[in-house]
This record gives sequence, structure tokens and C-alpha cells, in this order.
Amino acid sequence: PMRTLKLTVAYDGTHYVGVQRQANGVSIQQCLEDALAPLAGDPGGRGPTVAGASRTDAGVHALGQVASVNVTFDVAASAVQRALNVRLPADIRVIGVVDATPGFHARFHSTGKTYRYRIATTPVLSPFDRWFVWHSPGSKDVEAMRAAAAAFVGKHDFASFQGRGGTVRHTVRTIHRLDIREAGGEIVFEVEGNGFLRHMVRTLVGTLVEVGTGQRPADGMTAVLAARDRRAAGPTTPASGLTLMSVRY
Amino acid sequence: PMRTLKLTVAYDGTHYVGVQRQANGVSIQQCLEDALAPLAGDPGGRGPTVAGASRTDAGVHALGQVASVNVTFDVAASAVQRALNVRLPADIRVIGVVDATPGFHARFHSTGKTYRYRIATTPVLSPFDRWFVWHSPGSKDVEAMRAAAAAFVGKHDFASFQGRGGTVRHTVRTIHRLDIREAGGEIVFEVEGNGFLRHMVRTLVGTLVEVGTGQRPADGMTAVLAARDRRAAGPTTPASGLTLMSVRY
Repeated sequence: PMRTLKLTVAYDGTHYVGVQRQANGVSIQQCLEDALAPLAGDPGGRGPTVAGASRTDAGVHALGQVASVNVTFDVAASAVQRALNVRLPADIRVIGVVDATPGFHARFHSTGKTYRYRIATTPVLSPFDRWFVWHSPGSKDVEAMRAAAAAFVGKHDFASFQGRGGTVRHTVRTIHRLDIREAGGEIVFEVEGNGFLRHMVRTLVGTLVEVGTGQRPADGMTAVLAARDRRAAGPTTPASGLTLMSVRY
Repeated sequence: PMRTLKLTVAYDGTHYVGVQRQANGVSIQQCLEDALAPLAGDPGGRGPTVAGASRTDAGVHALGQVASVNVTFDVAASAVQRALNVRLPADIRVIGVVDATPGFHARFHSTGKTYRYRIATTPVLSPFDRWFVWHSPGSKDVEAMRAAAAAFVGKHDFASFQGRGGTVRHTVRTIHRLDIREAGGEIVFEVEGNGFLRHMVRTLVGTLVEVGTGQRPADGMTAVLAARDRRAAGPTTPASGLTLMSVRY
């Protein structure tokens, strides 16, 4: 009988081309499918197709990515977790496996996601943080950034924040929360919403940092949204600073 | 005229053979000397000899290693720091440079060092911690470990804790502090002393973990010290968990 498994996955995305299978390198999806193949009775073959909730890009990390997969093998969820972690490289860890309602789909059924973006503002970048932050030395006006960020909370058309290559035509999303905190030489953004366009978090951060460095007025965000034009927003910040924290259903 | 510079250095030791130059791979010392060579008027040559305070092993990290070097070039300390960081790989960062008293030697003149050792006790190892902890899943009796650790504080002969390859004959050292705290799936040791033998911190941790897992009695540490025999102590834990935090002068 068909079962649907819900996997919760943490990964250091530094060495991957992203979640989705791609011809040009190793993806999280490929690693998960390869690790599932022996359980599915097809060792060395391509395992059952895994769908990730968020299509994170190359270099983006996850503490709580969720993936779904339909399987027919009869192995307890906890044993599936152990078997996957034995086979997966150490920079991908399955932190939970449960049986979901058959037909559950990690991407289509998700109702919200939380991302974190870390900026290191110290003159010298810590060697321990180099893959996990964007290094942007120099102080920023965090109060101005918070004032600007308020314009993004709620239901808005985020077309201006969709990166090139984003193909979604319905660009209205709801941001429930966009917190910015500063501590220990870091500025950390945490943003929760019902869904995000391609590069949307990184472009929101890039635009807010321009507010923080005085290149844009804090009250200019409504106009950026209204433009519905990628050129109205700021730069897309590097992937390294971004981590998918959790997915809601 | 000769000057002596005091460098404070942080590094991710994962990809290095240790601080000291060795024939079998790249060392922190070699990287620092290569980066100093152009300042010393010898680009591409071997730069002035750098001495590290602590001879950390392959895979051991540092937040506050100290190194000394005698130079003759006339460049301000802050400019030396910037020039070194431009040339060094990103997993080694010079976090401070000052002019020291001429003849200052980072190792010979140090009066104390602080090390941290991190153990991850969670069943699944976080992909973000994999190079920076020792993964030893399962709970440990931290109270018993603290009781046992008390026997090490003070002036003792630590011959039982000197690793093979350690050649020091005077094995008496003073430990000022050995704290053990547990939080968020980690047990973290912090130990401060006037000096440490080869592998001493990692063997102290390995012995204390055997107390924490009930393989040794908490009151057995005095006998281990008295044995003055490496075989009386527990195993040497992996290098990955160890970080040199600071050096005192």
C-alpha cells in the first residue's frame, strides 16, 4: 500500500546547487532520493521522487525544511530516519520522519514558512560564520530598517521583489512578521509569511539594508511595492545568509 | 629597526595540519608566514618566522590564538592586520595586531590559556556543528562529571593526561578553573590553566565523559593523577570539539 512520509530536514547548503534536482550539480533532492532508493528496493537506482516545501537556492541553508515522498515499503518511520542518516552526507540530516496523510505534498499543502537572514557587520568576518552570513561591514540604522520593514507586513503585491527567473504570475503574498534584531556584531532578520517569491527574502533584506545605510528613505517602501518592477527594489543579498527555519501546515 | 608584532588569530582548523609547519600539509604558521612575506619585502618567499602560543593540533580551532613575529618593515599595526586578512584564506582571520615589547614570544611568555570543548549529545548531529563538536549521543551525568573535575583544579602532575608524542618531562600544571555546563543538547567544558600538555584537554574530557556514562567512579580521579601513566586515563576525544579561546600574558 502507498504511504506518504513527511521528512523534516536540516542542511548546510554550501556545497549544493539547491533543493531541486539540476543537471549542473548535486541537489538536496538527489541526495534524499539516493538515500531512499535501497529502502524502496532499488539500491543504486533513482529512489522515489522527493518534493521539498521550499525550493531553496544554491548556498541557502535549512534548519527545518520539509519534504514529502510517496513510498510502498513497510519500514517504521523512526527506522527510515536512521537509515537515511546513515546514507546521507553529514551536511544533510533528517531530523524527523512521520507518516503523513496519504497524498500529503510538502510544497502544495504548506500554509507558511519562516526564514532567517544573518548579516555580519564586524570589520573582520569570523572564520566560523563565513558560510552562514552575508558579510557587510559597517553599522546600519536598525531603527530606520524596522520602520521601513513595517510597510511589508500584511498582504501586498511583491512583484518588485521577485528575482529574475521567478516565473510566478500571482505575486501577492502575506507577510505575518518581519523582525530585525541586532546583537554581537550581527543584524538578524526573521520573516514569516504564507509564501515567498523567488529571491524575495534576499531582495527584501537588500532593500532594507539600503535604508539602513541611508541610500533610501525609510518611508520609500510603499512606492517600491507599488512599482511592481524589480528595478524599484534593492539588490538581492548573497544566499549564504539565508536559512529556512520552519514550514507550517 | 627590529619590531615584534603580537597577532591575535581566529581560525577554523578543519582543513589544517595544525599551527606548526609540517611537511604533510598546510599549517596556520605557513599561511601567516606566506601572508607576511610581501610586507617583509620577499613576495613569494618564506616570510618571517611566526610562533604560535599554543601548538594546536590538526582540526583544533581558535578564537584567540596569539602569535609573535619579529619584523623590520615599517607598516602600522592596523595596516598589517588589513594586509594579512586580504592575503589569508577566509578560514584564518587576524583579529588584532599590536606592537609588543621587542623580543616578546607568544609561547614562552604566555602565563595561561583557556580552552573550550563542545560535545553534542543529541541523537542526530546538526550539519552546522559537525566540524566544531564531538558527537557523543546520549545523556551524561553532568553532576558526576563536575564532582570528578574538581580533583583536577589546582596544581597537579598531569603525566597521565599527556598524549603519546608529548615529550615534556616536567608535567606539573595548574588548572585554575574547569567548568562544565549543559544546554541545548550540548555539554561544554571550559578549562583555564597556566599551561597544557599535548592532548591534555581532550584526555581530561575523555576521562570525565567516562565518569558521565558510569564507566568510572567520580571519586577515581585522584588515583588517575597519581598513576602518572597514560593508560590510567580515558580516551583522547576528537580534535573537532576543541577551541583555543584566549591566551594570557
